[in-house]
Amino acid sequence: MTELKNDRFLRALARQPVDKTPVWMMRQAGRYLPEYRQVRGQAGDFMSLCKNTELACEVTLQPLERFELDAAILFSDILTIPDAMGLGLYFAEGEGPKFHKPLRSEADIEQLEVINTAIDLTYVTDAVSMIRQELNGRVPLIGFSGSPWTLATYMIEGQSSRDFARAKTMLYTQPELLHQLLDKLALSVIDYLNAQILAGAQVVQIFDTWGGVLSHSAYLEFSLTYMAKIVDGLIKQADGRDVPVILFTKGGGLWLEAMANTGCDCLGLDWTIDIGSARHRVGDKVALQGNMDPAILRAKPEVIQREVKRILGSFGKNDGHVFNLGHGITPDIAPDNAKIFIDAVHEFSSSS
Amino acid sequence: MTELKNDRFLRALARQPVDKTPVWMMRQAGRYLPEYRQVRGQAGDFMSLCKNTELACEVTLQPLERFELDAAILFSDILTIPDAMGLGLYFAEGEGPKFHKPLRSEADIEQLEVINTAIDLTYVTDAVSMIRQELNGRVPLIGFSGSPWTLATYMIEGQSSRDFARAKTMLYTQPELLHQLLDKLALSVIDYLNAQILAGAQVVQIFDTWGGVLSHSAYLEFSLTYMAKIVDGLIKQADGRDVPVILFTKGGGLWLEAMANTGCDCLGLDWTIDIGSARHRVGDKVALQGNMDPAILRAKPEVIQREVKRILGSFGKNDGHVFNLGHGITPDIAPDNAKIFIDAVHEFSSSS
Repeated sequence: MTELKNDRFLRALARQPVDKTPVWMMRQAGRYLPEYRQVRGQAGDFMSLCKNTELACEVTLQPLERFELDAAILFSDILTIPDAMGLGLYFAEGEGPKFHKPLRSEADIEQLEVINTAIDLTYVTDAVSMIRQELNGRVPLIGFSGSPWTLATYMIEGQSSRDFARAKTMLYTQPELLHQLLDKLALSVIDYLNAQILAGAQVVQIFDTWGGVLSHSAYLEFSLTYMAKIVDGLIKQADGRDVPVILFTKGGGLWLEAMANTGCDCLGLDWTIDIGSARHRVGDKVALQGNMDPAILRAKPEVIQREVKRILGSFGKNDGHVFNLGHGITPDIAPDNAKIFIDAVHEFSSSS
Repeated sequence: MTELKNDRFLRALARQPVDKTPVWMMRQAGRYLPEYRQVRGQAGDFMSLCKNTELACEVTLQPLERFELDAAILFSDILTIPDAMGLGLYFAEGEGPKFHKPLRSEADIEQLEVINTAIDLTYVTDAVSMIRQELNGRVPLIGFSGSPWTLATYMIEGQSSRDFARAKTMLYTQPELLHQLLDKLALSVIDYLNAQILAGAQVVQIFDTWGGVLSHSAYLEFSLTYMAKIVDGLIKQADGRDVPVILFTKGGGLWLEAMANTGCDCLGLDWTIDIGSARHRVGDKVALQGNMDPAILRAKPEVIQREVKRILGSFGKNDGHVFNLGHGITPDIAPDNAKIFIDAVHEFSSSS
């Protein structure tokens, strides 16, 4: 394979010193970029864009043309697995993701089959291969999946939810049934992420968007257990390099110690936790990724720069930190402000 | 004043031993009760019910007729202060609270005046007086208010919000303006809660429903500072008894140490934190209130009982714990399940 020209991101994930703190942004290929909106218009709806290898590759690379990012992330959705399982993912205009056929009975769950990525989700691995080739060693490529619990919430609710009434009712009244579902999803995620790694993903991230709605004990039993199972089941090396795994539970700041014990390499942090206190709690066990509130990107350059400096200072050393937002960049952000953010990370962390 | 027949709640707030762990439920007077729905139907809309002294008193007392609760809480809304400031609170059917005149300019904020409860919110103090009289010493009465930050989010957004874009934009781009608003709100809350105490409230709780959407440093600066100011400004004793203050920041589990340093008496906990680890962190500085996930009330009696036992065991002693849900009880819960919950708390914590 081509030599990697910028390995800051991989070095930080391995907790090795770096010349500058690496940075990327969740949802960096997205609606805040006019060039993205143009391609999206061409493709039609969101899933058509995900399924079009050339266009998915194009939008993945777009932010790298504008900004000095240290990683690329596959353009896709966290709900591709339930879609491949037959639930019929769609996006109603102005609303979040929905399923035509949400899980409504025990039989629905019993009949679900673990996916085979090589048959069911070739559009994803095709995109990974093409992006990796097009990147040509510029920066590492991140593959990703939703966590089993997060996928289950959407599959049970049929869409996003305020209080996850259906999913939690199943958790408390039919825990075995939920475990059956989560186990199928964990096996599917393992297959899916391993296929992405074999196709060229050099790092993988598991997005546990809704782990934070659970109680401490329910989180351990219904979300973290399955993420740990995935970490165990992943290919450890590809192209002679380790393949690091990042776990990101939004709202998971209370549970970092348990997350760090899964064997993962890095924890994603949302903005509610002070990154210095997070580092103190996990020690050198894992790297940390985060954690600026994306809302700060609406502020003046000085405010963005001050916050970047504060977070770098709070983390306090030059190894083991991947700078990122605490959640995805929102469509209303001016690309110039994203550039100020990214440049500030490199400037203020520069060891020279 | 009448002698208090059940002081378990006050004893627990003072971290004194109790015969049984006291329990109440956030939103215990609410839509899950058929007798509430009937009175609500009589009153018309939600605010008409709040403003009708007799009916507000009636629904406050309803859950005490059904369940062995150890406290009553004033039936009202957290948004009475902004309504009194002229923003025009209303509830559209099936939606959350909204304002006819949200804050849209600097002038809107500059023109706001600190409320005078004795003039602007007599319907609240009238209800407190009547409820206290009708309770006749049965259990203590809790008064409450929204926190300044939480009130500000609704006032700026005009309604609840997914990402609080307007409020956060103000926080990061016009922090002085937001501080001006928060200061007016803190002074209003002090006046409001002191008026409730003088009218008969024996405990007060500050609901910081949206503190948890802030970063660690923004929480300290824009939410906790103002709650601390309120704690400082409250009347400390009434009827020869201390008036304890409970702070509840939903999603505030990472910040307990700072909250405990405000001089408050008790911290409300949502269900995401293990109450034993919370107690370990705050020591004997404050009592703790919480923290069962209200979703568990949908489960079978055995599951509810097991969870009550687990939380009691995690807290681990018989002083300083007020049992509660981690958030309000939802309208879909069967009253019988609420009874199972409340009885379980008393049964499993009984020292006899």
